[in-house]
Amino acid sequence: MTRHVYLFDADLGDAHPKHLLGGKGAGLNAMTRLGIPVPPGFTLSTDVCVHFMEKDGAYPEGLEEEVAAALKGVEEAVGRRFGDAADPLLVSVRSGARVSMPGMMDTILNLGLNDETVEGLAEKSGDRRFAFDAYRRLLQMYGDVVLDVPHHRFEETLGRLKKELGDPSMLDSELDAPALEQLVERYQAMLKEEGATFPQDVQAQLWGAIAAVFGSWDNPRAIRYRKMQGIAHDWGTACTVQAMVFGNMGQTSGSGVAFTRNPSTGEKTLYGEYLANAQGEDVVAGIRTPLALTAAAAAPGKEEQTLEHQLPEVFAEIATHCETLEKHFGDMQDVEFTVEQERPYVLQTRTGKRTAHAAVRIAVDLVHEGAIEKEQALLQVDPQSLEQLLHAQLPTPEELAEKGVEPLASGLPASPGAATGEIVFDADEAERLAGEGRDVILVRRETSPEDIHGMKAAQGIVTATGGMTSHAAVVARGLGKCCVAGVGALHVDYAGQKLAFREGGEEKVFEKGAVLSLDGTHGKVYGGALDVVAAAKVPEFDELMGWADATRRLRVRANADTPRGARKARSFGAEGIGLCRTEHMFFADDRLAAVRCVVLAGSEEERARFLAEVEPMQRGDFEKMLGAMDGLPVTIRLLDWPLHEFLPREEAEYQAVAEALGVGVERVRQRAEEMHEVNPMLGHRAVRVGVTVPSIYRMQVRAILEAALAVRKAGGDPRPEIMIPVVGMASELGRVRSLVDEVATEVFEKAGESLVFKYGTMIELPRACLTADQLAEHAEFFSFGTNDLTQTTFGISRDDAGRFLPEYVDELRLLPADPFAQLDREGVGALVRLACEKGRAAREDISLGLCGEHGGDPSSIGFCEEVGLAYVSCSPPRLPIARLAAAQATLRQR
Amino acid sequence: MTRHVYLFDADLGDAHPKHLLGGKGAGLNAMTRLGIPVPPGFTLSTDVCVHFMEKDGAYPEGLEEEVAAALKGVEEAVGRRFGDAADPLLVSVRSGARVSMPGMMDTILNLGLNDETVEGLAEKSGDRRFAFDAYRRLLQMYGDVVLDVPHHRFEETLGRLKKELGDPSMLDSELDAPALEQLVERYQAMLKEEGATFPQDVQAQLWGAIAAVFGSWDNPRAIRYRKMQGIAHDWGTACTVQAMVFGNMGQTSGSGVAFTRNPSTGEKTLYGEYLANAQGEDVVAGIRTPLALTAAAAAPGKEEQTLEHQLPEVFAEIATHCETLEKHFGDMQDVEFTVEQERPYVLQTRTGKRTAHAAVRIAVDLVHEGAIEKEQALLQVDPQSLEQLLHAQLPTPEELAEKGVEPLASGLPASPGAATGEIVFDADEAERLAGEGRDVILVRRETSPEDIHGMKAAQGIVTATGGMTSHAAVVARGLGKCCVAGVGALHVDYAGQKLAFREGGEEKVFEKGAVLSLDGTHGKVYGGALDVVAAAKVPEFDELMGWADATRRLRVRANADTPRGARKARSFGAEGIGLCRTEHMFFADDRLAAVRCVVLAGSEEERARFLAEVEPMQRGDFEKMLGAMDGLPVTIRLLDWPLHEFLPREEAEYQAVAEALGVGVERVRQRAEEMHEVNPMLGHRAVRVGVTVPSIYRMQVRAILEAALAVRKAGGDPRPEIMIPVVGMASELGRVRSLVDEVATEVFEKAGESLVFKYGTMIELPRACLTADQLAEHAEFFSFGTNDLTQTTFGISRDDAGRFLPEYVDELRLLPADPFAQLDREGVGALVRLACEKGRAAREDISLGLCGEHGGDPSSIGFCEEVGLAYVSCSPPRLPIARLAAAQATLRQR
Repeated sequence: MTRHVYLFDADLGDAHPKHLLGGKGAGLNAMTRLGIPVPPGFTLSTDVCVHFMEKDGAYPEGLEEEVAAALKGVEEAVGRRFGDAADPLLVSVRSGARVSMPGMMDTILNLGLNDETVEGLAEKSGDRRFAFDAYRRLLQMYGDVVLDVPHHRFEETLGRLKKELGDPSMLDSELDAPALEQLVERYQAMLKEEGATFPQDVQAQLWGAIAAVFGSWDNPRAIRYRKMQGIAHDWGTACTVQAMVFGNMGQTSGSGVAFTRNPSTGEKTLYGEYLANAQGEDVVAGIRTPLALTAAAAAPGKEEQTLEHQLPEVFAEIATHCETLEKHFGDMQDVEFTVEQERPYVLQTRTGKRTAHAAVRIAVDLVHEGAIEKEQALLQVDPQSLEQLLHAQLPTPEELAEKGVEPLASGLPASPGAATGEIVFDADEAERLAGEGRDVILVRRETSPEDIHGMKAAQGIVTATGGMTSHAAVVARGLGKCCVAGVGALHVDYAGQKLAFREGGEEKVFEKGAVLSLDGTHGKVYGGALDVVAAAKVPEFDELMGWADATRRLRVRANADTPRGARKARSFGAEGIGLCRTEHMFFADDRLAAVRCVVLAGSEEERARFLAEVEPMQRGDFEKMLGAMDGLPVTIRLLDWPLHEFLPREEAEYQAVAEALGVGVERVRQRAEEMHEVNPMLGHRAVRVGVTVPSIYRMQVRAILEAALAVRKAGGDPRPEIMIPVVGMASELGRVRSLVDEVATEVFEKAGESLVFKYGTMIELPRACLTADQLAEHAEFFSFGTNDLTQTTFGISRDDAGRFLPEYVDELRLLPADPFAQLDREGVGALVRLACEKGRAAREDISLGLCGEHGGDPSSIGFCEEVGLAYVSCSPPRLPIARLAAAQATLRQR
Repeated sequence: MTRHVYLFDADLGDAHPKHLLGGKGAGLNAMTRLGIPVPPGFTLSTDVCVHFMEKDGAYPEGLEEEVAAALKGVEEAVGRRFGDAADPLLVSVRSGARVSMPGMMDTILNLGLNDETVEGLAEKSGDRRFAFDAYRRLLQMYGDVVLDVPHHRFEETLGRLKKELGDPSMLDSELDAPALEQLVERYQAMLKEEGATFPQDVQAQLWGAIAAVFGSWDNPRAIRYRKMQGIAHDWGTACTVQAMVFGNMGQTSGSGVAFTRNPSTGEKTLYGEYLANAQGEDVVAGIRTPLALTAAAAAPGKEEQTLEHQLPEVFAEIATHCETLEKHFGDMQDVEFTVEQERPYVLQTRTGKRTAHAAVRIAVDLVHEGAIEKEQALLQVDPQSLEQLLHAQLPTPEELAEKGVEPLASGLPASPGAATGEIVFDADEAERLAGEGRDVILVRRETSPEDIHGMKAAQGIVTATGGMTSHAAVVARGLGKCCVAGVGALHVDYAGQKLAFREGGEEKVFEKGAVLSLDGTHGKVYGGALDVVAAAKVPEFDELMGWADATRRLRVRANADTPRGARKARSFGAEGIGLCRTEHMFFADDRLAAVRCVVLAGSEEERARFLAEVEPMQRGDFEKMLGAMDGLPVTIRLLDWPLHEFLPREEAEYQAVAEALGVGVERVRQRAEEMHEVNPMLGHRAVRVGVTVPSIYRMQVRAILEAALAVRKAGGDPRPEIMIPVVGMASELGRVRSLVDEVATEVFEKAGESLVFKYGTMIELPRACLTADQLAEHAEFFSFGTNDLTQTTFGISRDDAGRFLPEYVDELRLLPADPFAQLDREGVGALVRLACEKGRAAREDISLGLCGEHGGDPSSIGFCEEVGLAYVSCSPPRLPIARLAAAQATLRQR
């Protein structure tokens, strides 16, 4: 017969399967096995829950006998009997699924008390108040959880009693023993009124609690949670019955929490808090202020009151247990313990939360101490948290809230970091003021390529619309500037040179020059100047990165458009440029005038004339880029944007173009007007321009190849890769391939030498994925442009997503995450997978990579590893995150 | 040993496999078998070609012997010998692949002539000029095709001779025998100069010609053609060698073409042309005007000159052959014949081209005559051609070109039909003038929903931008108005109230009131008023449609938004409404003011107030729609458009909204401004509005269900289907499903009765296809919205596609067809297929349909049949096309 009930560590050896015992049960079993003093108990396996659900609340045969036997074991271990009127054993009953579902299911404490045993507990403990306090807590929990009596009925009863006692505002802890006795009586009466009787039979209590725990697996809250987290409904929960211990039995009792290392710095020292004569929940509730565990960490003058001084033997024992646990789990532990009359018990241990700084240090230290392998160390650090180390930061929103500082508005954490400065509404103004040495924050409804110089000059950028991959977000990340994008409450009045935050009828207005602070890591905007903490230097960081590099299979490249960006990327560990966008080059001051003439030319001859002006400058850009990345691949994307992005904006600019072209300004305006597009994202752009206005791509290809030849002439090793964007049909790619080959032949013949370059395509349309086998006939590489692919797969414009996507993700939970931040596996991922398969089938040695924002997101990097891409490419500041995430992905794939 | 050479009908019985003999060879074999007089000949099979290609020009073993034997057979049949100096047999050598590749490969005539045999031919025919004319033609063809001498060399030689003869402009037919003899001599000399000698050995001639024909399978032109048409490269061509006959051997010879029925009307009467003393190419070249075949069809006074009168026995024989051929092939034939000295020969027969009118009549008549089955009749009519019967038409562009009428500009054939009228640039103006009884053509850069009343009033619409599924195109088709969209050369100047067509530096300007004519069937714009031919009434049409309805598996529904549209659809044979768009209802005059307040409301309460105003009107609309389609399903799509589509345009409208909302007009303007979207197609629309502003969908669902209850109360049988647009995630669909269920419960409780309705989704995003299994958990039906699905799969906005897509399709041939007109099987089709599979797997009885423009396209309907959809839905005027195409699809699937 299958066994259903497991006494802690009586039978399971070193195996404590979570799928059977739940997380909590497995942990308690493991600790018991390690010799840690854990209050005795036993676990009803998840199988019981499954049976319970399937058979409409019935238990497997023989369960009662198994529970009785286990309970007997507990009684023996504790030396008290369940229901014994003189010296009763009290137990807790808790849920515990395979994975943590915090707060989703039910728990009941102090089972075993009734009108009789409470007297025995009072006598035995010598503390009548303690006993009745425990009893009234039981009644409340049992009434709520098992008997389903509404919470407010208990509050009313308690309130009425306090009123009768003359002080409606008294704290629960101020109720004395007689008052609690009264309360117990009244609770039981109230329950009867509600048609629900509290069972005096302790066995009935126990089984009532067990049924409630199993039943709570299927409460609507838990079902919703599982749906959201992707937890299977048929796993079921385990149920653990454990002897109660009490930290509130006088000054030699107490409860505390110990971290095995300092969670802020990672320093190897016991760190924690302790509250004498208190139960665990009292520490959490914060009614009394707990003291430091150790004298070293205590506030000056409080050294004597620490556990280390008060109960040195108990402290020493706990310290030993902490060491054992850290060693066993191979990571810093957060240990909850209770001291009952000088006897310490460990109630729970789990991996301790820590700062990024501490995480890096602990992981590296543990390896040096020989406690773990490098692989484990790599898995212990959350790649995303490295963000904290790499950028200036404000205190977290929670920390600020504690100090009473609330944000003016929230938006998307578009580019991490923090900034404080005067607000300006114009890029030129931003540049001017920054030139005077002032810190400015650029505020725009949305940014456009013409704002780039202002973004460079500003400390930070905030926009009213646009998502995680909007222009503002992408450029800010590229520049390493802090940015909060898509702040829905933000209304910008350019004419009035002011902004307003509007929410729920309230409005706060700030004029130009007012000071704001931005938290780009959390997407918050604050009023006034807040303290910005500079990026930290963690000595262990480089070592950890070195291990990551030695471990990962995925190569890591950077998105960079400038020689400066390329050099920075290289210093951050980039192994090439995965995406060099050429449109930013078009915007440089020295050529924008000529570019506008290219766009607005009236004939191909005219266009050729101005392209010839632009060409040497493009060639110069490419020469520097290829030089900076000497020996490493540089993927250059040919023009991607629609031509109307480069149109003049101001009257004077139109004048200049008209003069250069020798036509009337009205004619030029008309041409510009005719270029208007309804949906520019889906319009005449990228390869479509390359095909219909081939002179532009010709110019670019010539500039790339001639630049590469020049670099090689100078002794370098240039590795250009020409990438065609927004391809939807193999025929497009074939047509451009012919163009590229023609230009290459011309260039090489003229130079009298040739060089090897790669030709490939960005995959950013569903149709490209569906016909990837055909594309692979022309393309030597695919680079997944998952920004655009996400837009077209979902049919969501990243620029307009701010109006509904945050609500979808944060409030309605229609999506588990913003698909522009974390790759959507079900939709976009399915297409990527298909494209990889088709691409490989058609060209065995095809090179597959991903560029775009997902390249810096750990979860998305995990996906890239699963489908076997060769590399990811991300913005330079995210390179360390990508390197670590790639290493973790490799380890997880093994 | 495999046989490679087949004498016409000597061996093959009734099987004449095209894959072996090519189309031409198979036809000649079949005719011979039928006892039709065909000049004797034989065919070298496609296998020979394959061998020739694979083995670098070598022939299979034994081929020479086979050819020699076959040639002997021909010599015997004709009674002349190949190369006989006294009475030579002449032959032609022609290519002929499995499917027709017109003009792609080579042909050589008159083989067998040399300096010796030409004299024999001259003597035997008694016509020296004829003999040398034949010889010089051979030299020219052979020189060009086999010897690869440039064409211009022959022209130069001929030109010089004519000059020497004193008349450089003389026609070839004016050259007399001595001149032709001269020419033969000079051609041979010229060939020698070019290093290419014409072989006097007739066997060498024959084999040279055969090699050239096989070689021409792989000329670049043919390869490109096959690529485009999807013809396999390894099929190869057959090669047919046939005795020559001559229509130019005096007045008892001649060439002609006979149609077995009148190709314009379908009338059962022999119809054709004949030219005495002429070869086939002379008829085609149009140097002399051919005469009618029959007296009945002859021009007055020319009756005596017809073949019927001139050679009555020959005519009778040809008429008999025509009858035999029509009967054999079961369709009207286009027969080419030559009469050589009173002996008629049939050279080719093929299915005759005809007007739509004739096609319908012929197909129905043939069934009534017992010549074919109904199934065959259905397959004989091109569904697309029915367009001609249903709309007013201009003469075709070709017909107009013959009369010297050229279009001003071309655009997309967005909505079929023809119109003539004064141009206006404003919808109100169009309505006003039409109200005065004037015919107007509405000219817009692109239309918007606010133009609908003007579109209704106009005879036709022309736009500068927008594709086959742009607003103008979709609405015009719905209204049955002729429309030419996306006229790239059209530049509209609203302020100046004029337009210009600009092309290649030329500009033609038309002011308001100028008269233009539109051809919506071919996408042409003409200046001035052209004659419009009214839609035809073909008596046999209804009978054919009845057969189609009895045959087809696919149901056919219509897209209609108004009760009038619904009634019209029913009269055209609609079996339900597949797409009722609710936004057009929002635009009706009586509610647009309230709708604007809904959009611009400052709070949910305010919005509710104005929704309550709109609700009774929507309910009324639905009541009429459901009533009109009593007993048939009506799929109602909830609001699909972004709210900003309904924003006011003019100052007065803003004022009205501000007053109604009780706020300043500036505030309203600001709200409107904040709703601006960069890519509205991918923005906050459809289900995204339904989820974030649920009051709108609630109102719509309530209106639908209450309308249905009212219709039933009145004795009707309403069958509403609620369809949610632009769904990308199952969670969206689930959320709206809850909303719908809530509203339904309210409505049914209030009414004290309930009714059955269906809930489903439009599938128009790639992600919806990829997660269709999840969607099917909520949806009882899918309706593929392939317009939007094409946009997102390709990443092409239909509104902006006009800038490059026509060039892609027409000039560059990067795509075989406009994917908005003909469903793209490789991309969009793959997603539809996947969604069908996933949908069915998750819900066995899921109903699958397609709405949108592809629902009226025969090729796309074929795809719908292949994937097993239940129905297609199209605009009412295309219903007959859809019904016939669906019947053909069913027959082809069998």
